[in-house]
Amino acid sequence: MLLLPGILLFGILVGTHLPAGMAQAAPKAKQRVVIQVSDADPGKWQLALNNARNVQSDLGKDNVEIEIVAYGPGLDMLKAESKVAAGLAAALDSSVGLLACENTMQNRHVSRDEIYAGVRFVPAGVTHIMKRQAEGWAYIRP
Amino acid sequence: MLLLPGILLFGILVGTHLPAGMAQAAPKAKQRVVIQVSDADPGKWQLALNNARNVQSDLGKDNVEIEIVAYGPGLDMLKAESKVAAGLAAALDSSVGLLACENTMQNRHVSRDEIYAGVRFVPAGVTHIMKRQAEGWAYIRP
Amino acid sequence: MLLLPGILLFGILVGTHLPAGMAQAAPKAKQRVVIQVSDADPGKWQLALNNARNVQSDLGKDNVEIEIVAYGPGLDMLKAESKVAAGLAAALDSSVGLLACENTMQNRHVSRDEIYAGVRFVPAGVTHIMKRQAEGWAYIRP
Repeated sequence: MLLLPGILLFGILVGTHLPAGMAQAAPKAKQRVVIQVSDADPGKWQLALNNARNVQSDLGKDNVEIEIVAYGPGLDMLKAESKVAAGLAAALDSSVGLLACENTMQNRHVSRDEIYAGVRFVPAGVTHIMKRQAEGWAYIRP
Repeated sequence: MLLLPGILLFGILVGTHLPAGMAQAAPKAKQRVVIQVSDADPGKWQLALNNARNVQSDLGKDNVEIEIVAYGPGLDMLKAESKVAAGLAAALDSSVGLLACENTMQNRHVSRDEIYAGVRFVPAGVTHIMKRQAEGWAYIRP
Repeated sequence: MLLLPGILLFGILVGTHLPAGMAQAAPKAKQRVVIQVSDADPGKWQLALNNARNVQSDLGKDNVEIEIVAYGPGLDMLKAESKVAAGLAAALDSSVGLLACENTMQNRHVSRDEIYAGVRFVPAGVTHIMKRQAEGWAYIRP
């Protein structure tokens, strides 16, 4: 007799608290995506920037958090003299996070001074992307 | 005294209903994968089609749901005059979903008439892939 | 009256058993990443090996499990006469799993003898990567 209300209550708890705590499919949670750039190809850099912009216009800028992580041969995208420098400025203006891999910078003898202003740094690009996936971010590799 | 059956009941509820609602690790749930094509490279288009076919033969066609999403420079894969048109026909015959990005179509002035018959449309390829990942689909970028 | 302790108990159950069963965000769990190689590009092969090494040095070799899966045009990475053979040896020494796709081997008429010693085999590379993602592994496509 006392079990029936327990089941109902259980249903309510599951229906409200659990999904919220497990994020991914929660309807109102901010969506998040990490975009990887690891090619030395300005066409791919531009595509990554276009992807970010399209996601923002499709979902609404305030409903989505976006990071572009550049590492390996992709690091050049985020240099001060990058061929997509205008696009970097626009991305930063739109609150898209731009992240350079310090492992790559060390291997390629690139100093922070040579990186586009406003770009942030992560110790290892790949590890950062792994962390984001574990946190439930989507992963896009254009 | 009444708590003990409650715990048992809870275990049954968790054991059956919850995993079904959260998919990923459920042993008998249909597996699902979204395959991204964003390169203007017919070799990659063919590889995406091969990947879909191999997944179907490995898991059994009825046990897996597959979508191939083409966007950016990858859109050409899904045009009526595509170099892999025969492969598109076979994929559609095997219930592989083929999805073209309307954002890209707009940017490249490609109309629906120019797209291979049977291909479906999504407003934004990247956003669709994000949605699928949030729903628990695997993501493959050949 | 009997429902209240039931709710508390429910909270305990949810707080301990459920998250453990759903892995991803568990703080102390070993991190795991599957790295895909599907390009016929030795630069990408080297990048995949570098990625694995950087992840190990960043997280600590014992805290992370890494697999590199080669399929399609990427299979050549794992051949005995691979251009990155020295890197394969180092990866195996560091307990990085190297996995060759048997589907690809069959299509390209490559026998096990032609594959670098220590490399393991999976029936289908893509299906293996899907499985790893379903198990909560991060996915990196360099």
